[in-house]
Amino acid sequence: MDKVRKMERVAALTKLLADRPRHLFSLTYFSELFNAAKSTICEDLNTIRETMVHFGLGTIETVAGAAGGVRFIPGLSGREADKLLSDLARRLAEPDRIIPGGFLYMSDLLFTPHLMVKVGEVFMERLAHLSPDYIVTVETKGIPLAFMTARAFDLPLITVRRGSKVTEGSAVGINYVTGSSKRIQTMSLPKRALPAGARVLIIDDFMKAGGTARGMVDLAQEVGAEVCGIGVLVATAQPEHKLVDDYLALLILHDVDEHTKVTDIRPVLTTG
Amino acid sequence: MDKVRKMERVAALTKLLADRPRHLFSLTYFSELFNAAKSTICEDLNTIRETMVHFGLGTIETVAGAAGGVRFIPGLSGREADKLLSDLARRLAEPDRIIPGGFLYMSDLLFTPHLMVKVGEVFMERLAHLSPDYIVTVETKGIPLAFMTARAFDLPLITVRRGSKVTEGSAVGINYVTGSSKRIQTMSLPKRALPAGARVLIIDDFMKAGGTARGMVDLAQEVGAEVCGIGVLVATAQPEHKLVDDYLALLILHDVDEHTKVTDIRPVLTTG
Repeated sequence: MDKVRKMERVAALTKLLADRPRHLFSLTYFSELFNAAKSTICEDLNTIRETMVHFGLGTIETVAGAAGGVRFIPGLSGREADKLLSDLARRLAEPDRIIPGGFLYMSDLLFTPHLMVKVGEVFMERLAHLSPDYIVTVETKGIPLAFMTARAFDLPLITVRRGSKVTEGSAVGINYVTGSSKRIQTMSLPKRALPAGARVLIIDDFMKAGGTARGMVDLAQEVGAEVCGIGVLVATAQPEHKLVDDYLALLILHDVDEHTKVTDIRPVLTTG
Repeated sequence: MDKVRKMERVAALTKLLADRPRHLFSLTYFSELFNAAKSTICEDLNTIRETMVHFGLGTIETVAGAAGGVRFIPGLSGREADKLLSDLARRLAEPDRIIPGGFLYMSDLLFTPHLMVKVGEVFMERLAHLSPDYIVTVETKGIPLAFMTARAFDLPLITVRRGSKVTEGSAVGINYVTGSSKRIQTMSLPKRALPAGARVLIIDDFMKAGGTARGMVDLAQEVGAEVCGIGVLVATAQPEHKLVDDYLALLILHDVDEHTKVTDIRPVLTTG
C-alpha cells in the first residue's frame, strides 16, 4: 500500500507543480494535502526532480528558510529549445506567408497554445536572470506569447493599449514615433497597473526599427517603473541599430523577397 | 529498480499529458519514449487516472482504434470551479474597481496567468459538448482568457481585430453596432484564418447588450464558419434580452452603484 501511495503522491505533486511554474509551494501545504511527513514529501520531490531532469522537462528548486518551499522550473533542454526555434523558422519561411508589403503572416503560430507555451518557457529560461516583477507587452498579436512568458515566470502580464480605453480608468499616455513607418501613435497604460519601482520585462512578437519597444520603455519610465529587459520572438536584421539598445531575439529575419517568395529567417541557437 | 522506473514513468507521463490538455498521444509514442511495453504504459496511465480523479485534477481518457491514444482532460471538480468563480466575484466587487461610467476594472485579473488557466478549464468543461474546431475572440482584454480556453481544448485561437491590419493580409470585414453605446464599429478577420465549415466557439471577457458578440457571429458566418456557442466571463443582468440568444456566462453583473461603491456580481454555480 505504501508504494501505491507514494506513486499517487508523485503523480499529484507533478501535476500541481507543473500547473503553476515557478510558484513557490510550502512543504506544509503538500504535507497537509497528502497527510504525509515533510521528509516523505521531500523524498517524493527528489524522485520528481530526477525524472524531470532526466527527461529534459525542467527541474524542482528548493528555497530554504521560513518563507521557503519548492517550485517547478520549466526548462526545455538547449537542444529542445533549438529544435523549437528551428521549426518555427522553417514554418515562418513558408512562401504563402508573405503578405504584400513584405510582411509575414504569423498570427496562426502566435495563437497556437502549445507552441506559445514552449516559446514562453524559452524566454523565461533565457531571461530569468533579469528578475522581473512584471511582464509588459502591447496589444495585440504579442499577447499570447507574453502571457505564456508571464505564466512561465508566475508573474502578471500588463498590456499596454494603443490609444486610451475608458473601461480601464485614468491612464498615462505617450505619443511615440514608429521606427519604420515614422507615424505618430499613442499608447497608454492604466495608472493603477504598475507600481513605481517595478522591474518590467518587455515581450513582443516582432521588432523592426524598435519604435514600439522604445515607446514601451518610455511609458514604463513615465510611470516610474524600470525596464530590466526586452525579448522579441522575431527581430529584423535591418536596420542594425534599433531604437532600443539591448534586446533578446529568438529569430532573426534577414530578408523577405516578395518576388522570389524566399524568406530568410534564422533561429538564434544556443547549442552547437 | 523496476519500481523506480515505474515511478519515473508516472512522473514524466503526468507532466507530458498535463502540459498539453486534450491532445491525443499515441501509446506507441510513450512506449518508444520509455522503452516499455504498451501494456506497462497502460498500467501507468491507470495509476495516473486514479490519482487525478482522486485529487480532483482531471482525468485520463482512452480513445480506441488505429487513430486512438490517450489524453488528459483537465477538470476542476464542480466544487473547485464554484470556489474559483465565487473568489472572482468577490474580487470583482472590490469598491476601488469601479471606474467612472459604471465600468469595472478587470484587467489585473484577466492578465493573471494562473487564474485564466483555471477559467479556461471551466469553459472547456462546460462547453466541450459543443465540439468546436476553433476558439474565436476579439481583441484585447479577452485574449488571455480565450487563449487559455483554447489551450484547455488543444485548439487554435483566432483573434478578430478591430479595424483591418495590413500585416495580416487580405481580410473580411464587417460593420456592427455596439449594443450599449450604439456606435458603429468595424471588425475584421484575415481571410485565411478560418476554413469554411469550421465550428467556432466565441469566448469573450464581457457582454452587456451583446453587440460585439453579434458582430463576431455575423463575421464568422461571412467567412462560412458556424458558431456553435458563446462563452463570456461576465454578462450583465440588464438588458435581459441580448443581441445573441444563447450564451454561457460564468458571472452575472447585476449592478454597479458608483455612488455607494457597491457592486452586485454573482457567480453561476453548478453545485448546491
